[in-house]
Amino acid sequence: MVKIAILGYGTVGSGVAEVLVKNAAGIAQKAEQEIRIARILDIRDFPEDPLWPCFTKNFEDIVNDPEISIVVETMGGLKFAYPFVKACLENGKSVVTSNKELVAAKGDELLEIARENNLNFLFEASVGGGIPILRPLDQCLAANEVTEVAGILNGTTNFMLTKMIEEQMSFEEALKLAQDLGYAERDPSADIEGADACRKTCILASLAFGRHVFPEQVQTQGITAVSLDDVAAAAAADGVIKLIGRTRREGEKIYAFVAPTVIPKTSLIADVRDVFNGILVRGNAIGDVVFYGRGAGKLPTASAVVADVIDEVKHLENRKNLYWGKGDPDYVLPQSGFETAWLLRLSAKDKDACVAELTAAFGEVKVLSREGAAADEVLVITPVLPESVTDKKLGDLRTASVVSALRMADF
Amino acid sequence: MVKIAILGYGTVGSGVAEVLVKNAAGIAQKAEQEIRIARILDIRDFPEDPLWPCFTKNFEDIVNDPEISIVVETMGGLKFAYPFVKACLENGKSVVTSNKELVAAKGDELLEIARENNLNFLFEASVGGGIPILRPLDQCLAANEVTEVAGILNGTTNFMLTKMIEEQMSFEEALKLAQDLGYAERDPSADIEGADACRKTCILASLAFGRHVFPEQVQTQGITAVSLDDVAAAAAADGVIKLIGRTRREGEKIYAFVAPTVIPKTSLIADVRDVFNGILVRGNAIGDVVFYGRGAGKLPTASAVVADVIDEVKHLENRKNLYWGKGDPDYVLPQSGFETAWLLRLSAKDKDACVAELTAAFGEVKVLSREGAAADEVLVITPVLPESVTDKKLGDLRTASVVSALRMADF
Repeated sequence: MVKIAILGYGTVGSGVAEVLVKNAAGIAQKAEQEIRIARILDIRDFPEDPLWPCFTKNFEDIVNDPEISIVVETMGGLKFAYPFVKACLENGKSVVTSNKELVAAKGDELLEIARENNLNFLFEASVGGGIPILRPLDQCLAANEVTEVAGILNGTTNFMLTKMIEEQMSFEEALKLAQDLGYAERDPSADIEGADACRKTCILASLAFGRHVFPEQVQTQGITAVSLDDVAAAAAADGVIKLIGRTRREGEKIYAFVAPTVIPKTSLIADVRDVFNGILVRGNAIGDVVFYGRGAGKLPTASAVVADVIDEVKHLENRKNLYWGKGDPDYVLPQSGFETAWLLRLSAKDKDACVAELTAAFGEVKVLSREGAAADEVLVITPVLPESVTDKKLGDLRTASVVSALRMADF
Repeated sequence: MVKIAILGYGTVGSGVAEVLVKNAAGIAQKAEQEIRIARILDIRDFPEDPLWPCFTKNFEDIVNDPEISIVVETMGGLKFAYPFVKACLENGKSVVTSNKELVAAKGDELLEIARENNLNFLFEASVGGGIPILRPLDQCLAANEVTEVAGILNGTTNFMLTKMIEEQMSFEEALKLAQDLGYAERDPSADIEGADACRKTCILASLAFGRHVFPEQVQTQGITAVSLDDVAAAAAADGVIKLIGRTRREGEKIYAFVAPTVIPKTSLIADVRDVFNGILVRGNAIGDVVFYGRGAGKLPTASAVVADVIDEVKHLENRKNLYWGKGDPDYVLPQSGFETAWLLRLSAKDKDACVAELTAAFGEVKVLSREGAAADEVLVITPVLPESVTDKKLGDLRTASVVSALRMADF
């Protein structure tokens, strides 16, 4: 029998308890022994909860209990989660967390402490909710040189974009609906401005390519500027707009960024709708593999946490070697070198002159048209070029101004 | 350094060698030591191959070499693969195989021998080619009570159905094209009659629900009877026809079968096109998760084999507990009890009388129409009922005969 503790009894933490109780028999069989919740830390009271006798408001009751061998952190944020997780690892307890902010900010340090103490620090639930992605990325794709990982990592913004694409809802209407349905928080900035997708991109990049990537190294653009005109322009380009977190290896360094991106309708992830997540992994042997499912939600996320707990129970003696190295300020390449095509909406008084100037500047552009566009709109796809080269050409434009610019995905 | 041997230097076997050489650095890092190909068994000569000095035609050179700790079986079939794999496990060598026929026929026995000898027997590549599915199903979904697994498991037939759906190719034309492109063998029966999907369904069912399922227990229907009229009828029902291998738990027993099935266009796996595979896992906590990628091909399959090799290198001392129990003739429930709706194409002289009789028999049916149907066609969707109940009602029909019947999926 293995005793565990849960830090934080919010949505995910209580879901973890629920899954452990509901599926106890199957879990004990998988783990080859019983898993018992010995302690739960929360500052709130839950006197009606059958687990209430386990509750404590004092972290010392957990970190100093030698019988507790695994601690689940589902508090979120950094303020308490970081010192608590660190203290647990330093005191001989393996840790499972669903806290993407913690892993993105402190993953390298916590993985190192776990390694020094021959413990496990696992966080499958921090990316893709219930979708198994980190373990397959680490283990099943071990035979591949992974070259790129790209995904729809935030369910709230994907829900909003789906409503904008399929029902022509405005951004504001879609946000209101997401809030009414409980998908978006009252302060939705972490979702719509991309911080959540950025943290998950950091974790995917760190694991895929072996060195820690910090959120401040990942150029991040959310969906607040995406308009219904952009949605229609993407459709004219046979694509859909998705908020994509993306990382690509380039020699010993990487690119990593988050941006609304035009995904071809034929892509494996173009049909990832509503609150679902979809993550594409590209390897040199395997080609493209996609993992797809609910990226959030109490029970899906909790089931990923519990799967990690089971894995830690099975590896109490022999730690798993999930690990990545220290980061470096120069590790993530400046976005200026990233090669991509763009879908541009331009405003031009003389549209023919604009197309002529673009053609002269880029050699060739693909000119598109769409119904409902402003009379002065020129809609084009540029050739694949380093971003700084395209920027320079667009900065020099005399016949038009850029209204919006979206990268075109090549997957 | 760990020495391995490869049995069979065909497409997959030579791909395994290629991946091990090409990605040697990354693989050694993941495995935490070098992996060296010590021996390759094949009856053919490959004098131009740089690995030619390793080749042998004598299995004894491998099974009796105490320095070889892992054997990769990529011969296919049962005749040699079964005694060779068994001998390897009995002689202290862990085994990796891509051979679905072997696992479907002998998985329980080989897993038991591996367990008795504290060895590993892994076969990720046997289902879904390069797609990580068995390990996530076993590990990441450990916290779930899995209730159902359903998938597009055969790339060749999915390619053919895609051509029939999107380009109105006939079955014969689609088969010819698949053969010309090298997707289908000259004797395509294992693909088009469903035996390949059946074996993969056996493996998924055995792993998901814990007891061995044999091919002869899985009612299997291929795609040879699927016509363009069926494709059009499915479209009228807002669906597409896919060859689905499916298994569902029902108390202590299971259903398992392979059949062409109408998948709603909104389903997570409706858009799995061409030679791709897509596998849906339904769990009580996680909801639906889908794994998607290339289900076959030299390098994708080889990369899955190599990932298993790496995993075995990391578990030379502490075996993984991937395992399932013995099968039982009564374990798989007769299909007669399976509850499903059907899409029926009927031939009726008096169509109004037929609809009236169907309505009287089923309480309610959904009547559809489509362009291009024969004048006497009645197209309906029946309510969800046990198959034997629907069969009885259809057997009693006086006003019409059944031209074709396809199950409607509920995922």
